[in-house]
Amino acid sequence: MGKITLAHGSGGRMTHDLIKDLFFKALGNEFLEKSDDSAILPKEDDKRIAFTTDSFVVKPLFFPGGDIGKLAICGTVNDLAVNGAVPKYLSCGFIIEEGLDEECLERIVSSMAIWAKKSNVKIVCGDTKVVEKNAADGIFINTSGIGFMKPAVNLSIDNIAPNDKVIVTGTLGDHGIAVLGKRKGLEFDSQAVSDCAPLNHMLNSLIDNVKGIKFMRDATRGGLVTTLNEIAESNKYGILIKEKDIPVSESVKAACELLGLDPLYIANEGKAIIIVDSTSSDKALEILRSSEYGKDSKIIGEVTKDNSGKVCLETTLGVVRVLDMLQAEPIPRIC
Amino acid sequence: MGKITLAHGSGGRMTHDLIKDLFFKALGNEFLEKSDDSAILPKEDDKRIAFTTDSFVVKPLFFPGGDIGKLAICGTVNDLAVNGAVPKYLSCGFIIEEGLDEECLERIVSSMAIWAKKSNVKIVCGDTKVVEKNAADGIFINTSGIGFMKPAVNLSIDNIAPNDKVIVTGTLGDHGIAVLGKRKGLEFDSQAVSDCAPLNHMLNSLIDNVKGIKFMRDATRGGLVTTLNEIAESNKYGILIKEKDIPVSESVKAACELLGLDPLYIANEGKAIIIVDSTSSDKALEILRSSEYGKDSKIIGEVTKDNSGKVCLETTLGVVRVLDMLQAEPIPRIC
Repeated sequence: MGKITLAHGSGGRMTHDLIKDLFFKALGNEFLEKSDDSAILPKEDDKRIAFTTDSFVVKPLFFPGGDIGKLAICGTVNDLAVNGAVPKYLSCGFIIEEGLDEECLERIVSSMAIWAKKSNVKIVCGDTKVVEKNAADGIFINTSGIGFMKPAVNLSIDNIAPNDKVIVTGTLGDHGIAVLGKRKGLEFDSQAVSDCAPLNHMLNSLIDNVKGIKFMRDATRGGLVTTLNEIAESNKYGILIKEKDIPVSESVKAACELLGLDPLYIANEGKAIIIVDSTSSDKALEILRSSEYGKDSKIIGEVTKDNSGKVCLETTLGVVRVLDMLQAEPIPRIC
Repeated sequence: MGKITLAHGSGGRMTHDLIKDLFFKALGNEFLEKSDDSAILPKEDDKRIAFTTDSFVVKPLFFPGGDIGKLAICGTVNDLAVNGAVPKYLSCGFIIEEGLDEECLERIVSSMAIWAKKSNVKIVCGDTKVVEKNAADGIFINTSGIGFMKPAVNLSIDNIAPNDKVIVTGTLGDHGIAVLGKRKGLEFDSQAVSDCAPLNHMLNSLIDNVKGIKFMRDATRGGLVTTLNEIAESNKYGILIKEKDIPVSESVKAACELLGLDPLYIANEGKAIIIVDSTSSDKALEILRSSEYGKDSKIIGEVTKDNSGKVCLETTLGVVRVLDMLQAEPIPRIC
């Protein structure tokens, strides 16, 4: 196979061939193959629409546990699922640097096809642009997504109240450390594997079976602490989490010690933070733990009347300290 | 104002400040300002959804008649409108090169706000990534869009039949030549102004008032001839257009002669190709010409039984020749 050239993005014959021979072959479905300016999707009466977008610029493109294609599917699927929507349709926009190996593009697109199927979403429209050598970095992918809200769902930060429990659906920091471990000039010996995963089946099932779910968000850029700060800042309560209860894998702990990083600020790509009424937290844990992607779910803390707008950590030594949102997350381009 | 740094894309405090101080200020609305992982949009019963995506990598970022921000709004709005949808909600994903002037970003976002308002669409969700110096080229923007189909609309290439008329909504090649005229190392003295414009009000009104509209497409990358070839290849008919009827401005003609380019292959960003039943073509022209963006609309040819799958041009000398789709459009990065 050859290399991607500027002509592949020009809209002429070579663009058409690339779309037909590579994209349709891997991702084709009745909507995408119509090749219309927009995809016409069936109506779903009585359902509000959830709409989200994410651009992916991760470096390197392939890392333990995933690649930019898997990330582009899971990231957008998860943004819909945490809002209580059933993800259904994705768009896909490629910006490709001239000279990218076609074989590399094909691997990425195949990965997207696999994860779109596992997530039960269809890629229904797309766009391909090619820019000159050094005007981009390999490939950037935007996925936007449409989901349909379950009619009764009402997730909102405003629902959160003192004594609500804070659940994380597994170990923290795996994605950021896995990507960092493969970064050029920084390669270190790490066993960390990205947690990149589609959470929609698990979170949709949670919503269906547990009444007391107040709010959900996936803990991507900025990690657990940034997400919790976003929640605490938006309402008048505090959040207290306990260090001893926060799940972090041994490999992530070791890498963070080596690099002077805090896993609580490192990005995850397959972990949700769930705020749930205390009376429903056991039921929620039970459902989450029965899922492939939630088996290490834990209650790590609760919402408090005190410390309004702040996130506090009770360390293993019993000291309580405030965890601020950082000015900048320590690792750029992890998604 | 300062420069965009990697920290602005990291998901931490600086990202939040940029979103609040710059994006919300210009683009804010009740959906966007919720800052949720996805925007929850009201249902519109009985209406099919149109969904489209486009990434914009135009170089330079500002050109006569527009900028990348205006382009990102109009391009996506037009992709929805040509399918017979009323554009309603847009997402917006920025990939920014470290070091971009904040003032430049603000100009682009302000332009997006102006054209979103004129197009009557809301930007309801967004994403911002920052990559290192030389890992992108200033700024790339993805906009995806949702529109709702008018219930009775049925535009399809399959509807096209011999004797249908081919209308273009104005002069051809203006966008490509306007951008090219500002390209570094190639600056030439041109009066060309991009035709970049939102066509939704005009095309929605056309659909409402004329029964015989068969198919519409905007003639972007690859220009008129690529679009017509896409149409001819998809059905069993030919298309014959007449050179003498094709509107091209004097400035575009002059630039094309100078550069050895053919305006029929140059990109437009505010022109639609419309296939209409011959009995409805006068009514269609009347409505198009009453619009700001359609006043130079013309019938340039018709669908033929002969020359199946081919686009033919009758030159001013009376010679008929086939116009193939090019391998590659001659000007990269014009959108």
